[in-house]
Amino acid sequence: MFRRIQVEIITIGDEILIGQIVDTNSAWMAVELNKSGFEVLQITTVHDAEEQILDAIDQALGRADAVLLTGGIGPTKDDITKDCLCKYFATRLVFHEESLRNIEELFASRGIPLNDLTRAQAMLPESAIVIRNRCGTAPITCFEKEGKVLMSMPGVPYEMKDAMLSEVIPRLQRYFQTPHVIHKTLLVQGYPESALALKIADWERALPASIRLAYLPNYSIVRLRLSVVSDGDPLSLEFMLNQQLSSLKEILGNAIVAAEDITVERLIADRMCKAGKTLSTAESCTGGNIAHQLTLLPGASQYFKASVVAYDNSVKASLLQVDAAVLEEKGAVSREVVEQMAEGVRCLLKTDFALAVSGIAGPSGGSDAKPVGSTWIAVCSKDSMLSREFRFGTFREQNIRRATQSALLLLNSLLDADEDS
Amino acid sequence: MFRRIQVEIITIGDEILIGQIVDTNSAWMAVELNKSGFEVLQITTVHDAEEQILDAIDQALGRADAVLLTGGIGPTKDDITKDCLCKYFATRLVFHEESLRNIEELFASRGIPLNDLTRAQAMLPESAIVIRNRCGTAPITCFEKEGKVLMSMPGVPYEMKDAMLSEVIPRLQRYFQTPHVIHKTLLVQGYPESALALKIADWERALPASIRLAYLPNYSIVRLRLSVVSDGDPLSLEFMLNQQLSSLKEILGNAIVAAEDITVERLIADRMCKAGKTLSTAESCTGGNIAHQLTLLPGASQYFKASVVAYDNSVKASLLQVDAAVLEEKGAVSREVVEQMAEGVRCLLKTDFALAVSGIAGPSGGSDAKPVGSTWIAVCSKDSMLSREFRFGTFREQNIRRATQSALLLLNSLLDADEDS
Repeated sequence: MFRRIQVEIITIGDEILIGQIVDTNSAWMAVELNKSGFEVLQITTVHDAEEQILDAIDQALGRADAVLLTGGIGPTKDDITKDCLCKYFATRLVFHEESLRNIEELFASRGIPLNDLTRAQAMLPESAIVIRNRCGTAPITCFEKEGKVLMSMPGVPYEMKDAMLSEVIPRLQRYFQTPHVIHKTLLVQGYPESALALKIADWERALPASIRLAYLPNYSIVRLRLSVVSDGDPLSLEFMLNQQLSSLKEILGNAIVAAEDITVERLIADRMCKAGKTLSTAESCTGGNIAHQLTLLPGASQYFKASVVAYDNSVKASLLQVDAAVLEEKGAVSREVVEQMAEGVRCLLKTDFALAVSGIAGPSGGSDAKPVGSTWIAVCSKDSMLSREFRFGTFREQNIRRATQSALLLLNSLLDADEDS
Repeated sequence: MFRRIQVEIITIGDEILIGQIVDTNSAWMAVELNKSGFEVLQITTVHDAEEQILDAIDQALGRADAVLLTGGIGPTKDDITKDCLCKYFATRLVFHEESLRNIEELFASRGIPLNDLTRAQAMLPESAIVIRNRCGTAPITCFEKEGKVLMSMPGVPYEMKDAMLSEVIPRLQRYFQTPHVIHKTLLVQGYPESALALKIADWERALPASIRLAYLPNYSIVRLRLSVVSDGDPLSLEFMLNQQLSSLKEILGNAIVAAEDITVERLIADRMCKAGKTLSTAESCTGGNIAHQLTLLPGASQYFKASVVAYDNSVKASLLQVDAAVLEEKGAVSREVVEQMAEGVRCLLKTDFALAVSGIAGPSGGSDAKPVGSTWIAVCSKDSMLSREFRFGTFREQNIRRATQSALLLLNSLLDADEDS
């Protein structure tokens, strides 16, 4: 039986431990490491404190094959990772000519004068392999010890990402032989996690031991991820996974939104681009988040034309042509209003499809008849209109995110229906 | 010298280690624990694997006074935290009547039938203190051992948050005596981190040893956080911090955006509400993110009226009255166009203030004259207009976030100018 190469991530910095920033780096690193066949064994976050950093490095190197450090290599005096690495690997800081040139070029390109604090970033551990940071001033350093590897890189997300993809992962793959990893993902709608687990319990019990199943709930979607990691023949592994996937698809039928690991935004973008159609949105309680999520993806301008965030009711009437009498009688959170919003924005912005959302995001604004979380969503094309009421929870941010995902899922259903007809 | 009570957080679950979700829980928990006078010593993320969970618990209890576990207590079979706790504390799972009643009530209120997997969540470690989860089916459990405390709670963010505030932190405060913690934060604009460090180097060198300074950069803003933790007299600590803050304010002058730990969105919201003014936005490259960030805050409807996300150029002309000839001649990313967008949306939506953004978010769409990251921002009121060009980087998501923050900061400057005049 083969063994997966195990990697640990150590995040260094007070910022995360005092809660000032969220550690998005580790999740991103974990995705890339898993994709490349490594197992992420543990993620540890420690303070910029020598003893803690040394302990964490020592324990991680004891458990894992490779350890990746992020953070603590900036120019300010709270950054002590380099000093700790010198201590741990019994070496000292020496001046590194090439790194200074990289720093000088970077500052010159931005037209900023170089200061001494930044210049000091070219002082690096003598026994390390120094790797150029193409996006910033703090170089990546790499240490080897008793067949294990440690690499230290910046904590600034885009610098870390570039370092990981261009240098860190390729180097790890050269050091270690990595097995095949195959993931297959189904996006399932309409089931809470526990109901889904019951629905597929028999199928799950019959899974071969080499296949691992993960339930990954995200608002109205559960991702079912099947994984196999093996040094066996990739084609036969793929075949085995596909067989399991087929029987799962039979059980779940229409509840499957997609048979790949994709976000709902990406799914909509792909379908819109493929069909050569355009989309506009009219948002009330989601406050622009649907447009934001869609436009986060490069190339959104191919199909996404515009959005009217009609937060104030007067704008629903003036810009989206919602009938003021209907607004008055039915209220902003109603089937009639949200359908008029969808049709209104589609005509205003001359798009093939439109979606509209109106709800009570909370925490206040609810009533007995329409408690916080009540949300109406409509999607339409020239010939069809689909609208539905949702009851989300009591938490504003959750409600905004759920409404966003639900609106895109409803649009996906309309696209299905249009294709079928 | 007193000692701060140290807490460690252990996050249990494969989801984070395979990178499927980002650990936002720990950051939130760290904020609340710090506010309450605890020090978060370490955050550790481990797999749903018995040996790893037991090791992590044992090490954390060895270092810290209290250990908080999140995750791994859901209904599906990959959740093994409860079994691990039984093993570690040498106890067994027993049926807990009250917890079943809580689960039944919760399902009844949602109109969902109860299934066996969920019913099993009322099986809990015999030696634990069981605490009701008001928002979900998995109860909180609390263990004591040799003067130390361990609590296990759900990983679902809103369940965890409610558990932390209503039960976990109050219990920790009863177990341990906590010192005074005072933080003072300045929001500084216009300086990269290293330049700011040089600017205030003399002041920083002269800081008393009991005061700790943290640089917390976030796009165009650096937060400077001064902290003192002590069991001394809170009033004299406050006085000492305020003295240091005053001299820092003198050094930084106009670069200080706010003298409290506040987001730029919150700052704008507060100023708008206080002045009783209304705001609209016209967004191109930010794609609705400005509206989204503003409307994430409860009460946004008090001042935020609407937004036009004019992603497509035709909408800039048709809806925002941007002169088609100017759009053609100067291009969408130009002072003229963005000023017309701001004025256009202000008139269309009849608000006191408006802001507009047009830029090249990337990764494609750049040219030599206007590379990716080029962004124009304009803010206006009836009587004044302020516009500025920015050159952000090459990363789409970063550019969107930077443009969002820069637009709100420019609006803040306009509000300053209006107040002064």
